[in-house]
Amino acid sequence: MPIFDPRTILGQTIRRTRERSQMSQEALAEVCGLHRTYIGSVERGERNLSLLNIVAIAHSLGLKPYELLKEIA
Amino acid sequence: MPIFDPRTILGQTIRRTRERSQMSQEALAEVCGLHRTYIGSVERGERNLSLLNIVAIAHSLGLKPYELLKEIA
Repeated sequence: MPIFDPRTILGQTIRRTRERSQMSQEALAEVCGLHRTYIGSVERGERNLSLLNIVAIAHSLGLKPYELLKEIA
Repeated sequence: MPIFDPRTILGQTIRRTRERSQMSQEALAEVCGLHRTYIGSVERGERNLSLLNIVAIAHSLGLKPYELLKEIA
């Protein structure tokens, strides 16, 4: 994925926020009710996430959904 | 859909922004490269939009993607 791809940017934002929270992919996946391998592919920018999964991941990271998209131009 | 459903809130935000721009559903659909009936169902809160469609609709409305999600708690 190009570095300016929205999927790449969102994935990097999620990974950075998760790591700052010292949360593992497994822990985030469990709180979200998603699979660990899905979180991994999201963080690598391989997923075109749906709105409801953006909301679930944001809440699990203690953010409002729009905060996850702020870096996307 | 319940009124607090993220799909409902996003749909209302898109409709309100589109109407303020005096843009028809047809015009928005054409700029986005999506179908008019799809835009209609998005505005009714019936769609769990993907990230890339959120980005496409935001740009077509002259917004940054995160601005479309600001009202979602």
